[in-house]
Amino acid sequence: MENFNFYSPTEFVFGKDRENECGKYVKKYGGTKVLVHYGSGSAIRSGLLDRVKKSLEAEGIAYVELGGVQPNPRDTKIYEGIDLCRKEGVDFILSVGGGSCIDSSKGIAAGVCYDGDFWDMYEGKAPVSAALPIGTVLTIAAAGSEGSGASVVTKEEGMWKRDIGSDIVRPRFSILNPALTCTLPAYQTACGATDIMAHVFERYFTNTPEVEVTDRLCEAILLTMIKETPRVIEDPNNYEARANIMWAGTVAHNDIIGVGRSQDWNSHKIEHELSGLYDCAHGAGLAVVMPAWMEFVYKHNVMRFAQMAVRVWGCEMNFENPEETAVKGIKAFRKFLSEIGMPINFEQLGAKEEDIPELVRKLGVEGKTGGFVALSPEDVAEIYRIAVRAK
Amino acid sequence: MENFNFYSPTEFVFGKDRENECGKYVKKYGGTKVLVHYGSGSAIRSGLLDRVKKSLEAEGIAYVELGGVQPNPRDTKIYEGIDLCRKEGVDFILSVGGGSCIDSSKGIAAGVCYDGDFWDMYEGKAPVSAALPIGTVLTIAAAGSEGSGASVVTKEEGMWKRDIGSDIVRPRFSILNPALTCTLPAYQTACGATDIMAHVFERYFTNTPEVEVTDRLCEAILLTMIKETPRVIEDPNNYEARANIMWAGTVAHNDIIGVGRSQDWNSHKIEHELSGLYDCAHGAGLAVVMPAWMEFVYKHNVMRFAQMAVRVWGCEMNFENPEETAVKGIKAFRKFLSEIGMPINFEQLGAKEEDIPELVRKLGVEGKTGGFVALSPEDVAEIYRIAVRAK
Repeated sequence: MENFNFYSPTEFVFGKDRENECGKYVKKYGGTKVLVHYGSGSAIRSGLLDRVKKSLEAEGIAYVELGGVQPNPRDTKIYEGIDLCRKEGVDFILSVGGGSCIDSSKGIAAGVCYDGDFWDMYEGKAPVSAALPIGTVLTIAAAGSEGSGASVVTKEEGMWKRDIGSDIVRPRFSILNPALTCTLPAYQTACGATDIMAHVFERYFTNTPEVEVTDRLCEAILLTMIKETPRVIEDPNNYEARANIMWAGTVAHNDIIGVGRSQDWNSHKIEHELSGLYDCAHGAGLAVVMPAWMEFVYKHNVMRFAQMAVRVWGCEMNFENPEETAVKGIKAFRKFLSEIGMPINFEQLGAKEEDIPELVRKLGVEGKTGGFVALSPEDVAEIYRIAVRAK
Repeated sequence: MENFNFYSPTEFVFGKDRENECGKYVKKYGGTKVLVHYGSGSAIRSGLLDRVKKSLEAEGIAYVELGGVQPNPRDTKIYEGIDLCRKEGVDFILSVGGGSCIDSSKGIAAGVCYDGDFWDMYEGKAPVSAALPIGTVLTIAAAGSEGSGASVVTKEEGMWKRDIGSDIVRPRFSILNPALTCTLPAYQTACGATDIMAHVFERYFTNTPEVEVTDRLCEAILLTMIKETPRVIEDPNNYEARANIMWAGTVAHNDIIGVGRSQDWNSHKIEHELSGLYDCAHGAGLAVVMPAWMEFVYKHNVMRFAQMAVRVWGCEMNFENPEETAVKGIKAFRKFLSEIGMPINFEQLGAKEEDIPELVRKLGVEGKTGGFVALSPEDVAEIYRIAVRAK
């Protein structure tokens, strides 16, 4: 096991009706003037936004609002948020939405405290050294942004997707009410589930030996997703299944299951170019990329893929031919994705084979990019081509 | 799943040589005058205490020392610590040792900030409302106290064992170097492993339905312990196995695997009277009590015990007779405990059947005590009797 630090100070407030306590938690964490940041109209239509505002009012906390965060959140909204916060003297950001909304909130929170163009931080030209405190009311189990220091933002001009990672933008509290996710359409639910599973796989495929405890924890989350996802696709109002998925989504990405081991993250990078170019859902892009990536790299460590096949997908181990077991596991994953309604190839995603050179160019892979297996631009192109052909 | 809050703000600093950074972390968390609290002479003999002091000196941090914490830490040492801290103007406690040492440190930290007798808090007569900040350098993987708000202390007069639980006494940071545990004798190592597994089982046996994610996380920790414990018993210097056990021990008890479900904790209560009366190791007492408790309660939910047998102990499910599978799982647990060198009955522990009425009396069970199965005093006596006969 490698040396590591693990720090996850976010207070998670989980369960039915907990959004009605958001005012109390904003107060607890020092907010006096709040930016309520949200995405689509569904937070308005469902009455969620009203409940949030009522909870703030009950605590006598002033607020301003900024809605309209898009999936794959844009830099333009963040500039707007930074201006609004400065003008209104906002000292706390309350993010009501999914990963895109929370990622946008993190950009605003850091941007308000930075003198230059906030995009500098996303391009790695400036460190994140201060941010307004953030709280969240999560509406989609997917990105894990409610318990992480990560934020991914798209620059509208050129559709560049870049990220930051810093404890400074970790939410102070995150309210997780599984019931809020019951209104999600099946497609978005499945996208979220795929994202959660991908967060585990990015950690699972490691070159660090002897990491049984985190291996087992990773498998625990995957087994949960395999059981619970089809249940919510079949019955969107299954609160218990929604609750299991929601906690799995948080645990999958606050890194308690990924510490002390090398991680991969190439599938995320390869996917980011798909959602950057086609503006598709991140989870849908991952469903296309991740099994293709697995097929490209599995020979690097056949026994690890066999372990996944046996422990996660319940395949019988073929002791005479472990490679057959490894391949079966990857096939089981793709079959599962297809069954929950995810695209599994370029056509189903709405991507085009002829764009592959452009996708590779934008990814900007110079030389080899590390992780489980270092990939050259040509390797990345081949992974995209596998994803074209997949069925 | 039940509503819950999860809050684990401790910064975990894990890996080889990390104790040399303790001065840096004390500084980070605001300490200027430190009580270095430790247990036995082994911290001195191994040179650990010297490295800790050197690290404090390198940061220019003043300190006083208080050693001699016993296993099953005593109120008398805590009174001594409180006096010393007040006299010396200590503002931070650095605990160098195992669970007993950390529990003692929590008692001192809370006691310094309380006007009356600190024991009031352990008897539930006063809340824990303030405490000095605490950091730890862990030397035994067992109690999970490095990542919890719990502290168990024994009142020397009458050997009463009582506890507190409060976020206020959670360590600010905990340094976990698995190499520090390599010098532990096999018996203490096995006691620690048993304690870790017991922390999982106390959460695993729940009456809350539909808690797949935490079930699977619990099973992940148990599977890790079943793999890694025999390896460290065989080769005490196996760093990788020690590392897996150490992280498992922390995850087992910071409650990320136990949220949203009813928990039991009767085995811990029943054990506390054994270690209270005989001053035996807590883990050894648990090895005697826990399988006996399982045998007494398994009929309450045969399928849950069958799940443990199949998923944790690798038993074949007997679909015609699940009870047989359930019983096999319990037997496998006791066999495992015996194989790692733990006592499994009263005689091996040094306990006496004739003391059972006294043990039950001191536990002070009035009416029924809750958890997975509510137990009457007679039920507790029967569990002790099962533990007498076990082999």
